[in-house]
Amino acid sequence: MTTVAPTANPESDPRVKAVFDDIRATRKTDFINNLWRYLAFDPALLESTWAEVKRVMAQPGALDPLTREMIYITASIINGCSFCIHSHTAAARAKGMTDAQHAEMLAIIGLAAKTNQLATGLQVPVDAVFDRG
Amino acid sequence: MTTVAPTANPESDPRVKAVFDDIRATRKTDFINNLWRYLAFDPALLESTWAEVKRVMAQPGALDPLTREMIYITASIINGCSFCIHSHTAAARAKGMTDAQHAEMLAIIGLAAKTNQLATGLQVPVDAVFDRG
Amino acid sequence: MTTVAPTANPESDPRVKAVFDDIRATRKTDFINNLWRYLAFDPALLESTWAEVKRVMAQPGALDPLTREMIYITASIINGCSFCIHSHTAAARAKGMTDAQHAEMLAIIGLAAKTNQLATGLQVPVDAVFDRG
Amino acid sequence: MTTVAPTANPESDPRVKAVFDDIRATRKTDFINNLWRYLAFDPALLESTWAEVKRVMAQPGALDPLTREMIYITASIINGCSFCIHSHTAAARAKGMTDAQHAEMLAIIGLAAKTNQLATGLQVPVDAVFDRG
Amino acid sequence: MTTVAPTANPESDPRVKAVFDDIRATRKTDFINNLWRYLAFDPALLESTWAEVKRVMAQPGALDPLTREMIYITASIINGCSFCIHSHTAAARAKGMTDAQHAEMLAIIGLAAKTNQLATGLQVPVDAVFDRG
Amino acid sequence: MTTVAPTANPESDPRVKAVFDDIRATRKTDFINNLWRYLAFDPALLESTWAEVKRVMAQPGALDPLTREMIYITASIINGCSFCIHSHTAAARAKGMTDAQHAEMLAIIGLAAKTNQLATGLQVPVDAVFDRG
Repeated sequence: MTTVAPTANPESDPRVKAVFDDIRATRKTDFINNLWRYLAFDPALLESTWAEVKRVMAQPGALDPLTREMIYITASIINGCSFCIHSHTAAARAKGMTDAQHAEMLAIIGLAAKTNQLATGLQVPVDAVFDRG
Repeated sequence: MTTVAPTANPESDPRVKAVFDDIRATRKTDFINNLWRYLAFDPALLESTWAEVKRVMAQPGALDPLTREMIYITASIINGCSFCIHSHTAAARAKGMTDAQHAEMLAIIGLAAKTNQLATGLQVPVDAVFDRG
Repeated sequence: MTTVAPTANPESDPRVKAVFDDIRATRKTDFINNLWRYLAFDPALLESTWAEVKRVMAQPGALDPLTREMIYITASIINGCSFCIHSHTAAARAKGMTDAQHAEMLAIIGLAAKTNQLATGLQVPVDAVFDRG
Repeated sequence: MTTVAPTANPESDPRVKAVFDDIRATRKTDFINNLWRYLAFDPALLESTWAEVKRVMAQPGALDPLTREMIYITASIINGCSFCIHSHTAAARAKGMTDAQHAEMLAIIGLAAKTNQLATGLQVPVDAVFDRG
Repeated sequence: MTTVAPTANPESDPRVKAVFDDIRATRKTDFINNLWRYLAFDPALLESTWAEVKRVMAQPGALDPLTREMIYITASIINGCSFCIHSHTAAARAKGMTDAQHAEMLAIIGLAAKTNQLATGLQVPVDAVFDRG
Repeated sequence: MTTVAPTANPESDPRVKAVFDDIRATRKTDFINNLWRYLAFDPALLESTWAEVKRVMAQPGALDPLTREMIYITASIINGCSFCIHSHTAAARAKGMTDAQHAEMLAIIGLAAKTNQLATGLQVPVDAVFDRG
């Protein structure tokens, strides 16, 4: 169930086709996942979202590709986005994430969620030594 | 402002002292941050929380120490825990996180938050190919 | 799958019937959505919830009906309530929301989610000029 | 307290100066708020963030400027971003938001938060009629 | 720092005075906390909010007063509302919450936060036996 | 749909079998729910998670078993964990939660969610009297 109707032939719109072509070329696959298919209801939103994903996730930078995916998965789990958890866990696995790394990432997320709530529940004041402002 | 009164001499309790001693030995520093000082109001909660932090974060595993801290920071930002954002950003920096890595991590968190909301707003169905169940 | 059993003939309870009748009269439709059907397991909770929805959403006020629905959808997306995202997107569309307005609302929600996380991650202090207290 | 050190003379970096100049020109004010001042620690992140804020919030579109700000505030409240709540409430007021509109927006956010939790707690199934997929 | 200006003499408005009088009578104290003082910027919002707090929290029902407060604190911690964590922890303590109960409640919240993230990260399917729908 | 493949015969691993045996003995039932079945992909994560659940939820303490479950459900609702909402609502019902208690708990969660957002939206300052620090 979705809140927008999927377009029958999204690539009949040249702006959508250009984005889909770039996704296929960048990711070296014919597969276009549902996020892009549904975002196609608004070509401008599709274009700007893909441009940012490509810029942040697909270009060389200060972090390696697997670390990037694990940060993405962590955010997606806490934000509760089922689609994103699935798509980025698959992406991390394609980039080499082992079961042991997957389990350790989940253990850290679980521990962080616990200590986050403890610190918030106690309203622990931030130590002055942590300030950089 | 906090919801529990800090203990005047927490280490007069031998259970608290044992945990604080282990924190100092494990982290090779005399500094005990406020989370531990406030958790000392309940020695059992202090003990179990520290035991888990030590097990998950301070022992060799499948992920390197800096990646672990970045996963912890990511969770803490989305969970909105000011104390934890400060303490784990400081820990990540102590483990070598550069400004460029910090900025890239934040860019990924921001992008994930955006696409998480887009996928949730559109209620995008999960592609069958992502299923491992 | 739900956590309460739906009632077979909820309108056999006169309190439930009165609320359902008022929903039909207020919304000028015979359709009663599942939120009301499941809330019927506790007539008092059904009554107070509907009374508030009617007061806040169905009476003239300072905001027009479509703006109200977009605020409702925005909250529902960030709170991750699938049912509410669906029902209020349908309501907004019934009140005239176009695809262009839908896409623009989603773009703002995505941008806000990103800058919210950036400001939280950096722990940006609030400028004094913003204070009204 | 922040997690990055503010730069002493951020505009000595020409990329930062170009963004700050564009903020001043676009918003017709000399005031640069703290989000931009702290994002200046990474000029690329500053540039991409401002470019998106300008594109989404400062250009004519399908929604009027005040509605946009109220959507932004709503997201910021639920995401718990204190800085963003302050800055966008001030922006909304500058664009004409009255106390009555402010109160009504808060009433809708509060009602949505309540019904979001009720629907989630009951795990209410989405009515088939809402599906557009 | 707040987003609305506090009223100098809020009780000069008879609607505000009536609510404040009822708070004092119901809670048997002269103290009016800041939530009510700031909500006074909109008497209708103040009235409806207090009416609901009084109905849900101050009348006999199916749960005892301390259990109610612990449910309220739990929600407030996860929602990240600093004001509410403080005010309801104080209320719970006034109703007899011991340090041991406080610590146990926090341990449960921390454990729930952890298993919530594990189940979400793994996307664990709900067992059919749990369904009541 | 899940992000890890379920193990065909999880109890062929003696560490998994030991945990499953302890779950059956502690809960006095042959039923092992899906959280444990999926956590079995990493025996160490399964062991530490079960050990904590057993310690916090299944041993005598300062709170009665039903209150513990209601705190767990409250956290799970706000964290949006569908699996946990289902499993802990079932557990609470098994421990005697009536429909009236269920409805009252949901009413408190809904009220808290509302006032949490109001206090956050207004950025209400914490009254000094609440501080224990």
